[in-house]
Amino acid sequence: MKVSFSVQDIVQIVQASAVRGSCSRPIVSIASLEAAVPGDLSFLGNAKYKAQVATSKASLILLPADFEGEPQADQVFVLVKNPSGALALLCSRIEQTLWPKPAPGIHPSAVIGEGARIDISATVGPLCVIEAGAVIGPRSHLQSRVHVGRAAVIGADCWLMPGVTVSSECELRDRVRLQPGVVIGSDGFGYEFVNGRHEKVPQVGVVIIENDVEIGANSTVDRARFSRTVIGEGTKIDNLVQIGHNVIIGKHCILCSQVGISGSTTIEDYVVLAGQVGLGGHITIGRGSKVGGQSGIASSLPAGSYVTGTPPMPFQKDRRVNVLRERLPELFKRVDALESKLGEVATAGGSE
Amino acid sequence: MKVSFSVQDIVQIVQASAVRGSCSRPIVSIASLEAAVPGDLSFLGNAKYKAQVATSKASLILLPADFEGEPQADQVFVLVKNPSGALALLCSRIEQTLWPKPAPGIHPSAVIGEGARIDISATVGPLCVIEAGAVIGPRSHLQSRVHVGRAAVIGADCWLMPGVTVSSECELRDRVRLQPGVVIGSDGFGYEFVNGRHEKVPQVGVVIIENDVEIGANSTVDRARFSRTVIGEGTKIDNLVQIGHNVIIGKHCILCSQVGISGSTTIEDYVVLAGQVGLGGHITIGRGSKVGGQSGIASSLPAGSYVTGTPPMPFQKDRRVNVLRERLPELFKRVDALESKLGEVATAGGSE
Amino acid sequence: MKVSFSVQDIVQIVQASAVRGSCSRPIVSIASLEAAVPGDLSFLGNAKYKAQVATSKASLILLPADFEGEPQADQVFVLVKNPSGALALLCSRIEQTLWPKPAPGIHPSAVIGEGARIDISATVGPLCVIEAGAVIGPRSHLQSRVHVGRAAVIGADCWLMPGVTVSSECELRDRVRLQPGVVIGSDGFGYEFVNGRHEKVPQVGVVIIENDVEIGANSTVDRARFSRTVIGEGTKIDNLVQIGHNVIIGKHCILCSQVGISGSTTIEDYVVLAGQVGLGGHITIGRGSKVGGQSGIASSLPAGSYVTGTPPMPFQKDRRVNVLRERLPELFKRVDALESKLGEVATAGGSE
Repeated sequence: MKVSFSVQDIVQIVQASAVRGSCSRPIVSIASLEAAVPGDLSFLGNAKYKAQVATSKASLILLPADFEGEPQADQVFVLVKNPSGALALLCSRIEQTLWPKPAPGIHPSAVIGEGARIDISATVGPLCVIEAGAVIGPRSHLQSRVHVGRAAVIGADCWLMPGVTVSSECELRDRVRLQPGVVIGSDGFGYEFVNGRHEKVPQVGVVIIENDVEIGANSTVDRARFSRTVIGEGTKIDNLVQIGHNVIIGKHCILCSQVGISGSTTIEDYVVLAGQVGLGGHITIGRGSKVGGQSGIASSLPAGSYVTGTPPMPFQKDRRVNVLRERLPELFKRVDALESKLGEVATAGGSE
Repeated sequence: MKVSFSVQDIVQIVQASAVRGSCSRPIVSIASLEAAVPGDLSFLGNAKYKAQVATSKASLILLPADFEGEPQADQVFVLVKNPSGALALLCSRIEQTLWPKPAPGIHPSAVIGEGARIDISATVGPLCVIEAGAVIGPRSHLQSRVHVGRAAVIGADCWLMPGVTVSSECELRDRVRLQPGVVIGSDGFGYEFVNGRHEKVPQVGVVIIENDVEIGANSTVDRARFSRTVIGEGTKIDNLVQIGHNVIIGKHCILCSQVGISGSTTIEDYVVLAGQVGLGGHITIGRGSKVGGQSGIASSLPAGSYVTGTPPMPFQKDRRVNVLRERLPELFKRVDALESKLGEVATAGGSE
Repeated sequence: MKVSFSVQDIVQIVQASAVRGSCSRPIVSIASLEAAVPGDLSFLGNAKYKAQVATSKASLILLPADFEGEPQADQVFVLVKNPSGALALLCSRIEQTLWPKPAPGIHPSAVIGEGARIDISATVGPLCVIEAGAVIGPRSHLQSRVHVGRAAVIGADCWLMPGVTVSSECELRDRVRLQPGVVIGSDGFGYEFVNGRHEKVPQVGVVIIENDVEIGANSTVDRARFSRTVIGEGTKIDNLVQIGHNVIIGKHCILCSQVGISGSTTIEDYVVLAGQVGLGGHITIGRGSKVGGQSGIASSLPAGSYVTGTPPMPFQKDRRVNVLRERLPELFKRVDALESKLGEVATAGGSE
């Protein structure tokens, strides 16, 4: 980021309790203790990196209030209650300079359909298309090249980044953030096999995205066959994730990149799916479950499960089995040896 | 969906053979027998749910003509030859209200290159780009923000949804449906390693998409190195699927979400690939084969294969092996026990 | 491709050392020796296909200078130092006809923000959006519907294809090629769990794409939490790949389709990741390593590793273990037999 803060600016933004040392240069970037160069701000977010403070080349270091030690020359220690929290405050400030709140209004290059209702405080950026009857709520921001389909509804304080598509009749509640290229409301993947051909089953349901959901770049969420596909409040979805039709995702879930969820599956609240996990259709993942990366899940999981692998096993067991799997060559040899030795014993003992 | 049908409307749409009971409310949604609330239409698509009819709160239920039983108060039974088929008729009708056939013509915000030929019955929506020499066939619909490259050809009755890209010289035959964000004709991934650098191998072939193909949101199909990448008639492809250069896909295949197919691989007719399957390059998947979710296939498969896993095994065997894999800890213990016991026996028997 | 070359054209383009035979038709396509039909050019790129030359129906065949044999009627042999190199020369020529270098200038439908600086030799195509303060370098080509965010920098000779998004403050160096739908600079996936909710950690870093990088259709590269996500010089990335925040990728790497890389992971120079590989976060893949398709890597790999599987093993070992895994049913039976036989022996031998 191209920013520049004086030490005084930062002391004020992070609400410092004390300052040690002094530094004449402006702060122009952020880095870890080890990677920092002069001009960087750094921070002690985890006590285990304490020893790195003494040798860090950062110009300014955010430290816990009880930190003992003195800065080097042309370096300043800024003492705060919680260095990670202080950093977040500063990042929020930087965020505002990266993406300043746009002025409300409709860019003249946007194409607005008949009967669309756009709140006076909303921003519709260049080259957006709002089809007939769509609704854009207060303070929502359609950045550029966003398509909002016929009769779709966007709530308040949403941010739809470049190239997003929200298809007909789908609904976003409030504070939903869609990264570039997200598709909401593509057709579900449903066909009936008739006379040697796959005939399309019409997909006439919708997608509902509840409050405070964020969805990553180029992810796709299919509309329901009928009724609705739902992403629950506060759930966060990473890039290139696929959500099938009629999927119901609970509240405050985490879906990492490239996860795929087949149709009609239910994910209860507080579930975490690591990257590239695949879920079969028509199953339920119980509340608070965790599924390890690349796992393939074909059957329902009870609440609180922690599984990995394809097919999945409890995490500890999967680990154990994977270790033993590497020892299969040894095991085959041991069984070979047993067979030959038992042959000898049997012969020697006269049992054969 | 925001629809409203009277019972009379539905009786007519589904060509009912008989009606039992009556219901005063309009039908505004569709749900399963169990989930339905008053105002919903439901249906008995599978005989195993028969018992749910008696307790369903649906206002209208589509039932097979020979169904015995009487509706509850303010509920109507609509008897038809095939409830699933009747539902499809109704959904088609709803589809027309969700996506009414647009008027033909070219939106004034579209940018049309020199020598592009657009049929008079086609619809080119807002903010589309048609490059020089491209052809758009009768009744095809480019919804919004669609890019059709130089000399590309779109056949009749196609529907290209928002944000689709069809690159130079690629060809779509008739009734092709591309969901939002699909990319047809990106460069194949080909490089030669020369003097420590990867030099690009020009990718100058095309993509041919035959009749009645549907491709899901944000899927990508690479153009051939030379000659052509082909998607055969009637094949259906889900979201976020990758098709490499020079791949030939047969007719009436099903490729589920997040499948990836490496370059120059051939997929014969009627193949089904489940979600997240990966196929290596330069192999052939024989006619009618089925590949289970997440399988990784590096070698050709004969016609009629049904495999799962990485590396793949016949479905039943993979299942059996997976069960035994879970029992590896037990197997190692048994071999430990055998070894120690055999030691004792050998000692007792005097063979050592 | 729709091209037409005379034999004389081709002789000149490929710098032939000799020509045998003659052919009256124009050359309109390229195909393999086996697949070629009259009008096609073919080539002997690999000596093992030598026998196919005699029966090939190609009108023109590129052959090594020392090739012995005579063409059929109406067929011409064009002898060159290196047939594959000659083909590449020809493809480059075809490429220029497929994608002629566009005239410099800004299409009137593009929307240019305040203070954006666009080089006079650059081409900004239809319906592009260049936000305030962005920079577009010499001869770079933004094809159509490209979004370049606030203060982003595009170097010289870049090609951004339809629907690409480069977000605020991100930077592309020179000769970067982004296929359609690529997203550079989406937010990293970072949240802190506070009071039962996932609170967003601002993502205020940038993405740096070095010289000669190519990125495939609909791939996504997240901006750093702070500091930078880097794609090193000459690295080539296929379609639908996900690069997490703060990832550092070295020079001249190959990342095949659908690879996913979690946050803060480092990939050193000359690494090759096959399709659908998943890398965990905060690890390092050593220089020159190769990772087989679909592998899941949770720990760092030393330089020169060649691994496959989840968890990964050295390639040869993984192969061996996979063979033994298929024999698990047999192994269980053998252990059953051993146990029962040892029981008999023990009884016979009187040791129990």
